[in-house]
Amino acid sequence: MAEDQGISETGHEARPEQTLGEIGLWQFAPYLMNRIMGRYNANLQTAVRPQNLTTAKMRTLAVLAVVPGLTINELSVYAVIEQSTMSRTLEAMERSGLIRRETRESDARVREIYLTDAGQSEFDAVWPIMYARYRELFTGIDDAERTAFVGTLQKVLRNVRLHDL
Amino acid sequence: MAEDQGISETGHEARPEQTLGEIGLWQFAPYLMNRIMGRYNANLQTAVRPQNLTTAKMRTLAVLAVVPGLTINELSVYAVIEQSTMSRTLEAMERSGLIRRETRESDARVREIYLTDAGQSEFDAVWPIMYARYRELFTGIDDAERTAFVGTLQKVLRNVRLHDL
Repeated sequence: MAEDQGISETGHEARPEQTLGEIGLWQFAPYLMNRIMGRYNANLQTAVRPQNLTTAKMRTLAVLAVVPGLTINELSVYAVIEQSTMSRTLEAMERSGLIRRETRESDARVREIYLTDAGQSEFDAVWPIMYARYRELFTGIDDAERTAFVGTLQKVLRNVRLHDL
Repeated sequence: MAEDQGISETGHEARPEQTLGEIGLWQFAPYLMNRIMGRYNANLQTAVRPQNLTTAKMRTLAVLAVVPGLTINELSVYAVIEQSTMSRTLEAMERSGLIRRETRESDARVREIYLTDAGQSEFDAVWPIMYARYRELFTGIDDAERTAFVGTLQKVLRNVRLHDL
């Protein structure tokens, strides 16, 4: 129908495909996000190295500190760490007494992962470093802008994850 | 001075450090960006595999298509690919005739990298796949919101890259 022309099913205006040159690298969100996270993750890895933490271990501590009882699959998705790396990381953390695994009451096949008190202390020690880096990202950006930005990130994550957790 | 209380040098309101639990994982921008880019990069890698492209090769094509004449150092930063990987990627692309290197006229020590016509064709063939994934990210997000989001990303990149390019 004529009145539908110009709007696609997804709510985008229909328009010819743009080239990357037309959009411009500095306007291309995936480029900006890869640049930001590449630098942020590298900075953070350097900052936590004196505490003998890898990126995988640090993220595992952080995720379990706020979402206790995850399975290894869920933890792998939330921490954005491959399953094989996550499996090795958890074994090392269990040996160091930072996490424990419990059988889920409602389903004996499922193992839930929790921080121990030592794991919680380890996270409490590293959090100020993570928080300082987080604040640095938003230097000169006020609360309203940060809130709007986070709202868009949430929509983008819903768009990209599809059937993911 | 009393009137300065509550505002720090960086323009943030002074406030006690928040915990990650208080912020919440779903409000924590670095978490959301790592989740988004982990999924986006994996999706894109899968999508370009039939064209025999790695992430490093695809990004090199894309960056050189819009910013010709970069050095290997600059390319490594723009593509967020480690120098050693970038070096191997460029050697393979040179052998395949996708890129060429030229000595910079003003400084014979510097080698500039350019796409060949074959490299440009390779990028033209992969761009529709990259563009489709890019559009998918912003499904249901209007132009004004996307523009504001990109503006914040630019500020965040400036904050995080410091002495980087």
